[in-house]
Formats: sequence, structure tokens, C-alpha cells
Amino acid sequence: MKKKILIIGGVAGGASAAARLRRHSEEDQIIMFEKGPHVSFSNCSLPYHLSGIIETADKLVLMSPEKFMAQYKIEAKINSEVISINRDKKEVMVKNILTDKTYIESYDKLILSPGAKPIVPNFPGIDKVNVFTVRNVVDIDRLNRFVKSMDSKDVTVIGGGFIGIEVAENLKDAGYNVTLIEAMEQILRPFDYDMVQILHKELYDHGINLIFGDKVSGFEENKVVLASGKKIDAKAVIMAIGVAPETDLAREAGIELGETKAIKVDQNYRTNDRDIYAVGDAVEVYNSLTHSMTKLSLAGPALKQARAVADHINGISVLNTGYIGSSAIKVFDYNGASTGLNESLIKVLGLKINYEIVRVILSDKVGIMPDSSPIHFKLLFEVPTGKILGAQAIGKGNVDKRIDVIATAIKFGGTVNSLKDLELCYAPPFSTAKDVVNYAGYVASNLLRGDFKQVNVDKVRELIESGAYIVDVREKVEFDRGHLKVAVNIPLSELRDRAAEIPKDVPVYLHCRTGQRSYNAVLALQNMGYKNVANITGSFLGISLYEYFNDITTGREKIVTEYNFK
Amino acid sequence: MKKKILIIGGVAGGASAAARLRRHSEEDQIIMFEKGPHVSFSNCSLPYHLSGIIETADKLVLMSPEKFMAQYKIEAKINSEVISINRDKKEVMVKNILTDKTYIESYDKLILSPGAKPIVPNFPGIDKVNVFTVRNVVDIDRLNRFVKSMDSKDVTVIGGGFIGIEVAENLKDAGYNVTLIEAMEQILRPFDYDMVQILHKELYDHGINLIFGDKVSGFEENKVVLASGKKIDAKAVIMAIGVAPETDLAREAGIELGETKAIKVDQNYRTNDRDIYAVGDAVEVYNSLTHSMTKLSLAGPALKQARAVADHINGISVLNTGYIGSSAIKVFDYNGASTGLNESLIKVLGLKINYEIVRVILSDKVGIMPDSSPIHFKLLFEVPTGKILGAQAIGKGNVDKRIDVIATAIKFGGTVNSLKDLELCYAPPFSTAKDVVNYAGYVASNLLRGDFKQVNVDKVRELIESGAYIVDVREKVEFDRGHLKVAVNIPLSELRDRAAEIPKDVPVYLHCRTGQRSYNAVLALQNMGYKNVANITGSFLGISLYEYFNDITTGREKIVTEYNFK
Repeated sequence: MKKKILIIGGVAGGASAAARLRRHSEEDQIIMFEKGPHVSFSNCSLPYHLSGIIETADKLVLMSPEKFMAQYKIEAKINSEVISINRDKKEVMVKNILTDKTYIESYDKLILSPGAKPIVPNFPGIDKVNVFTVRNVVDIDRLNRFVKSMDSKDVTVIGGGFIGIEVAENLKDAGYNVTLIEAMEQILRPFDYDMVQILHKELYDHGINLIFGDKVSGFEENKVVLASGKKIDAKAVIMAIGVAPETDLAREAGIELGETKAIKVDQNYRTNDRDIYAVGDAVEVYNSLTHSMTKLSLAGPALKQARAVADHINGISVLNTGYIGSSAIKVFDYNGASTGLNESLIKVLGLKINYEIVRVILSDKVGIMPDSSPIHFKLLFEVPTGKILGAQAIGKGNVDKRIDVIATAIKFGGTVNSLKDLELCYAPPFSTAKDVVNYAGYVASNLLRGDFKQVNVDKVRELIESGAYIVDVREKVEFDRGHLKVAVNIPLSELRDRAAEIPKDVPVYLHCRTGQRSYNAVLALQNMGYKNVANITGSFLGISLYEYFNDITTGREKIVTEYNFK
Repeated sequence: MKKKILIIGGVAGGASAAARLRRHSEEDQIIMFEKGPHVSFSNCSLPYHLSGIIETADKLVLMSPEKFMAQYKIEAKINSEVISINRDKKEVMVKNILTDKTYIESYDKLILSPGAKPIVPNFPGIDKVNVFTVRNVVDIDRLNRFVKSMDSKDVTVIGGGFIGIEVAENLKDAGYNVTLIEAMEQILRPFDYDMVQILHKELYDHGINLIFGDKVSGFEENKVVLASGKKIDAKAVIMAIGVAPETDLAREAGIELGETKAIKVDQNYRTNDRDIYAVGDAVEVYNSLTHSMTKLSLAGPALKQARAVADHINGISVLNTGYIGSSAIKVFDYNGASTGLNESLIKVLGLKINYEIVRVILSDKVGIMPDSSPIHFKLLFEVPTGKILGAQAIGKGNVDKRIDVIATAIKFGGTVNSLKDLELCYAPPFSTAKDVVNYAGYVASNLLRGDFKQVNVDKVRELIESGAYIVDVREKVEFDRGHLKVAVNIPLSELRDRAAEIPKDVPVYLHCRTGQRSYNAVLALQNMGYKNVANITGSFLGISLYEYFNDITTGREKIVTEYNFK
């Protein structure tokens, strides 16, 4: 039976649903409405136009209405805003944005894919600055043209989420003076504070002016005014605080919203109206790790939902296993990726999960390959089950690969034991024979078995302040290039001869460069009868990266003689 | 209780076991014997010394005996060959290679990690050429010094396995005239013939002289003589035919060998002697996909086995879930990776598995990113269960990432349905919102549901010879840049208007550039009532890459007007 299906919103979700619907039926009438002038564009790529990596704005546009019609027999109506839904009559009212004319369109099934809009608080003086948001091709083109025309190079990005960071990086690459303002003490919440310091340093080293823990209180003429009183010159202000689901249309039509204020959907992405589905950034989804509803502004899930809806409308049932959330970001020379839970999310949500972390540093490929570099890897797992809860990885190499593996393992309900057993591809240009994923599995199993204890890199300053006894087991030549001021240097290679120097009656903390040698030292001391020994995860490389940014920005006393970032 | 543990063979397995043993006990006496002068080196990296990527041979050496003693209290005896094992007395006899002196060493536990040796058949005239093998640092240093001293640039590599290809590439990069001889019709058996053609082309395009399907019959003065009568100038001949497990010592001591003639071990890598373990290239392992014993010359499994043995000796039991085999290789600008079963292995082993393939081409990252490139991806899955059996990926981007995900899914017994559901990291520099792994899952599900039929790229020539009706649904401008000589061009964008041109009474085969548009066209035609339509997987890009090398080397008639590799 021929169906008429309307889709509100193009881009990822809408366009993907439309194409899948067409494959199911050649006869169904499929109409897609898009408020803006572009029905399908690469929204995640928008920031890359600012640096010229994507040269022209029209490259961002993937499909035209003409192509949708010609290739898929899909009517894509641009500049067309759906302004109301009449659920009783199964009709929508559409307004042509260019002519302001309205008309009625009926439906058998309706798919809502309206997305989410950038939040722009009505700060005092907001008319005194040039404010931009980055949601679509028009936005980025407008911003790009504007900054190119400015008589100054000063731009400010407000918000350190994915879009904020990508915009900041691309504007910096284009030669602007970029200030990034973030109300929290860190950017990129998918990363824990101890990990994200590496990216703070990277932004700082590339000359981004970072202001954390300070809020915008308002604006003056081409100036951002902060709660602290600080004023920042800004010819252009990019608002990247966050996004809010576009729910007005749905709410006004009596579509139920969920606890997160996004559109509530069932396991088939159907709203409280059996003929209306919703997908993408406008809906809330079930997080299978937190066991709660969440908003997930990610393109991958939107595509998956769109396809599931098109299938469901055509009688094919689709598994909904919930979401764990995986993401990646490039920050200048570094890559970051994460999946599942992190420590700060567990804290924020007050989750009652008994977990432990592994935090290891391993080479992304065979260490003697000239372009090898360290991967900083953090794994969260449940105690005592060993169930994998999440992971974060940051480095110059393929961190996304490692996180994809963990994301896959989480989807299968994997444990840290299963990570040891994974057979990952290996050749010297790609990885190491014992990949960081395997290695993290080994370390986690050791921890679960109680083989050794650890303290994380973010506790080292406290340890030092409390007068802890810290042994640096690197060779003297490494020690001399920079070390913890209080550390005693007993190289692993001299440990057995010099163990008597280490007191048995106080806790002893050990580190080396990455934690591998010190782990061996910890076990050696334990086997010699030491009862209270712990490995400092992250070790000196991690300590250097963790301390650097705050040392620099606060001017506080360093705990190291010199950092070592290699 | 203090134990005395002897390890025969250093490198990956032996050295790893030794270090793990030490972490378990500070008291145990651990002695490692290595025939050669280096107890620990990066054997997988050896070929990269030839091009200078790894500048000096000593960089390949990872640990010295002095370091083993200093850091791990492990006695590493180099130039020390164990020549016999007395199992009754639990003793070995060791010969110092430099002095020829022998001595006896007793053990509580013995670990065999002797590795595998390159096969060098005794070809007639073998003394008339300079023959090299690549097993250790001495070998590669010798080869490197020799080629640098040659008065000609001609070298020949015999064997197209991992080592052969890596040696050929690195010698070519160093400026030599490289001939690669492979007795089979293809290199790199972890890849199916339809996939590996891409790598054949890459080697050919980089000027490697490829000779397939021809065997070495003997040698003349600095010449390789082939069965075909062909003679190849070769100042240096590198034998990379394959490796054979070093089993002499074990066999002479009554250690049981398995059906593959490698050392037989139980689930804890213990031989038929309860006090003797064996790991690495010398043992056979259980392949959990073929359900049979296999030899696996891979570093990752060797490390895992070494650790398992060290744990088992110390009372910790370790899961042995069998092996699936994952590997990766760089071939000039291309990367290749594979895991699990492939079609040729299924055929060779005569496995009774009812399987189907997915073969798709997708961009490694967002297509508008300047460095995006296609990934050629092949997935094998069981019908009707959908259980994932294996995958291969070849491309310029991160193919290893995709294969690692599949390898992980296989380890968890995953099905193609589970691939759709994976949440992989996405940002434009890393991947696409619907990664090739997800996409392959979708296609596989469609195939399982019987939504459409396909023929693979390697059947196109046959199709053409049998007079099949083939429609190329690319736009005319693409068609004009090169197409199948027999193909009818009906762009997807004109398909609905021109469908009447396509006969309903014969099978119709469709393709585009990568298979995505033609997939949409196949479904459209089916929905219009066509009963016998199939998508050509791999499509025109795949056809071009598949046909090119054989066209060039055989001079046969091309089936395309021009190739298109973009």
C-alpha cells in the first residue's frame, strides 16, 4: 500500500531516513522539509572550512533537491519550515520562508528530525558584538566571510565542547588571535580532567588564549566581559556553549518530551503518536551504561536511528541496544577519542558503580619506527566483575582505533579479561605486538587480582605535599633531564643492590617515564617484602603533561625540576 | 619455593616470559639461552633497516644481557645453543657457540621458545648466488651491508609473504632493482585474490618486477633460473618462501609434535612433558574458526603465550580461547589488514561453512576532507546465522582500525547484526558517521534477509564473456572517463525515466563507482518488478583495480575502455 511519509529536517537523520525509505518502496511519496537552503550537508565538517581545509562552503553541501529527486525520487523542499502539526488530521502546515506563504501537507507517517540549535543566552550588551553560531553552511559561510573582512584578528570562542575546540583550532590555523572561554575548569567533557590536560597544553602551545573557570557576564563594544572582570577584545564572538533540542514544534503538537526535555521515543524511535517518529539530536536515548536517558548530539547514532525508523515503517524490526557514546576529536597535532563512561560522568550522575581505572602510556607503534609516539590510555572497569565501562585515549597516533576496539568490546559486554585475548593487527608501521588495548587488559587483570596498587598522576602533588616517599626508577641520565623535586633516584637497574635505601615502614610510590619499569620495580619490592608500595600511573611523562598547563597559567610552584614531554 | 626456570630462545616469546616470571617471583632463578648474539630484538622491524627507516642495525636490538640482569635479574646467555634436553634428569646441555664448550644446566621448568627458521631449499646451483634470509639482526645487517657493496642493483626476493613483501618494498625504497618471485598466482595469503590485486598493482606501480605462478628451478652465476626458463639477474637473493618451526631439539627429547609438525601443546602451552612448555612460532595452536590446529607465525600470539606460561608456572590459570589470526602490512602507499577466515582458506581447508561475502568501498574519512581515500572492505559471514567469519581491508587510510574492530567482534562471537549497532568514534578527520564497519553490517543484513543479490568483481569478465546485460548507473561524465566496454549507461538520476530501456527477461547487472548508487538502483528496479537484478560488488573502481595487473602482465584484451582508479 502506497504511503505518504513526511520528514521534517534534512541533514544526517532526515536525508538518511528518506533514502532508506525509498529503497524499501518505489511507490511511497517521500517529502523532506528543510528550513534552510541546504537539505544535506556535512555538519561535522563545518569548522574545517574556516582554515581552508575544506576550501569552499559549497563543498560542504552534499546533495541538492534536484539530486534527491533525480536519484531517489524524494521531494526535498528547502526554505520550507513546518510550523505546525495537526495530529488528528495527520497534516502539517508548511511555510515557505522566502515567500511567507503557507500550505498544508498530509501524511501517513511523519518523521521528526529537527536537530538541535546552538544556545545563545541573552547576555547584556549582546548587540555590541558580532555573534556567530555554527550550525549549518550558511552560518559557517557567514562567519568565514566576516572574519576575513575584519580589521582586527581577534576572535573569541565561548564554549570548549567539540564545536568550540574545532572552531578555535581552525581559526587559529587561519591566522587569527583566538581566545577560548570555558566556564568549567576543562574542555571536552568526554575526557577526564587528568587526561584532558594534554589537550589543554596542546591548545596553549599553539597559542590559543585559554580562559577556564570564568563566565561571560556580558559584552561591550567588540569586547567580551567576564565574571572575573576580565575583558577580551573580540571582533567576532562564536557561541559554542552547547545545543538545545528543537522541540517547539513537537511540544506544541502534544508530542511528549522526556526527562531531559528532548523528544521522548520508544525502542523504535516512535513518539507518543504511533504515526510520528523522531530521530537525531532532538530526541533522548537510553544510555546502556548509566541506565538513564541522555541527549546524544552525535551523527552516527542519528544515522542509525533514521535507518531504524525507515525499517520500522516498512515492517522490519530493529534491535535497540541503547547507546554508550563514542567520539573523537583532533586538537592540532593530537588526537583524542573516548567511549562509554568516564570518572567525571560517574561523579556528576552520582552513579553507584564500584570501578577502578587503568592509566597506561604505550607507544602507538613499534618504538623504533621514526614516527612512533606515546598513547595515553585510560580504561574504566567495574570491580569485581571486570566489566569494561569506558575508555579515553589521547596521542599523536591512532587513538581512535584503540577506542573503537573498546567501544566494540563494551557493546558485547566485554570484560578486561577479554581485552588480553584480543588478536589485533600488528606490523611495525601500525602498532605494537602487545597493543595498548591488550596491555590495559593485563594491567586491569593484575589490579583485579590485587597484584599491586596504584595512584593516579593527578594525586602526585598531594602526595608530595603530604611528604610521601617517591622513588624515580629511571636511569640517572633521564632523571637529570627533569624529575620530581622530592624524588629519590634509584634506577630499576640498581634496585636490587640499593633496595636497602628504601624504607620499609612508610608508603613508597614509584614511577619511571611511562610506568612500565616502575611497575616491575613495585613487584620486585613487594616480592622483597615491602607491604606498602604503589605505582604512579602516568609516571613522569604523565606528570609533566598533567602539571604543565596549570603551572603555567597559575604561576604556582612546580613540583618538577623540569618537565619532560618525550 | 624457589624454582629454576630455563628458557630456550629469547626475542618475543622467551624474553616476555622471562620478564613476567620475574614479576611473579624475586627468588626464582631464570636463565634464557639464545643461540645468536642478541637476546631481544624487534624481529618484525628487520626489513625496515634496509630502507634506512630504522637507521642502524643496533637500533633493532632492544635489550642486552647486561640490562636483563640489571633490570630483571635474568641471566641471558647469548651465543648459547641448547643442544639437548635430558627430561629424566631435568637437565639441558648448552653449547657456547664461540668456544664450542658445553655444560649442563638443570631446571625445574623449561620453556621452549626456539621460533621458526626460514626455509632454504637446496636448489641446484645455490652456491652460485648470494643467498640471504631474514630472521635476525645479524641476517639483516649482513644483507644490508652486502647490497650496499654490490656493483649492480639487481636483487631478487623469493616468496610473497609478509617478509618477502616488506623486504622487497624496503629494498626498492633504497633504490635497488627488485624482482619478486612467487610460485602462487598471488602474494599475501591472508588476502583473497580479488582483494590482493590492489596490492599487486601497488607493487607493480612502484616498479617491482613481479613474477607470479613461476617457480625457482635453480641458480646460475648471479642468476635465478625459473621453471619457465626465465632467468633473472640477481646479485643478492633473499629467500622468504616461508618458515619451519624449530623442532629438532624438542623432537630429539621426545617432545610430541602435532599434526602440523610443530610442537604440540595443551591449553596451557604445556608439552607432553608436564615440566616443559613451548610458545611462539615453534608451536601449533587451535584456530577457533577452522576448529583445527594451525601454525601462526605472529608476534602478538607469541607474547600472549609467553605470559600465559609464566602465569601458569606460578599458579594462575589463563583462558585459551584459541586463535583467529589478525595481521597487517604496509605496501608502499597502501595498508592492508585481515582477520579470521578468507575465501581461499575456506577452499584450501575444505571447510563446510555456508558463507556469504560483503565487499564494499567506502571513504576512510569524510569524503570532502582533502586526504580521504577509499577503503576496500571484504567481510565473510555465515549464512544463515550471520556469524562473522573474517574480514580484509585495503586502502591508503586506517584499514587496520576497521579490521581490529572486526577481530574484536569475532572474538565475542559477533554477528553482522551487531556490526550495525557498533558506536565507533567519529569526527571528519577520522572516519565517517556511518563507518565502513557499520555499513558492511547493513549490507550483510540486507543479504541475509534476501533483499538483493550480488556478484563479485572477480566474476565480471566471465559475465561479459557470457553476454550479460550490464548497466553502469554513474553519470555520463564519469562513464566517459572509462567504463566497461559492454556497459549501457543509464545514470541513477535517469533510471526511473529510462527504466523501459532495461530488459525484464534477462538478468541485469548494475554497477556504479563504488556500488552504493547501483545498490539503490538494484532496489529501485526490483521495486519496479524486475526479478533478476544484481549489484556488482566492488563496482567500477573495484573492477579497474582487479583487472589492471593481469591485463598489463598478460597483454590480454581489456574489458574496460579505460581504468579509473579514483
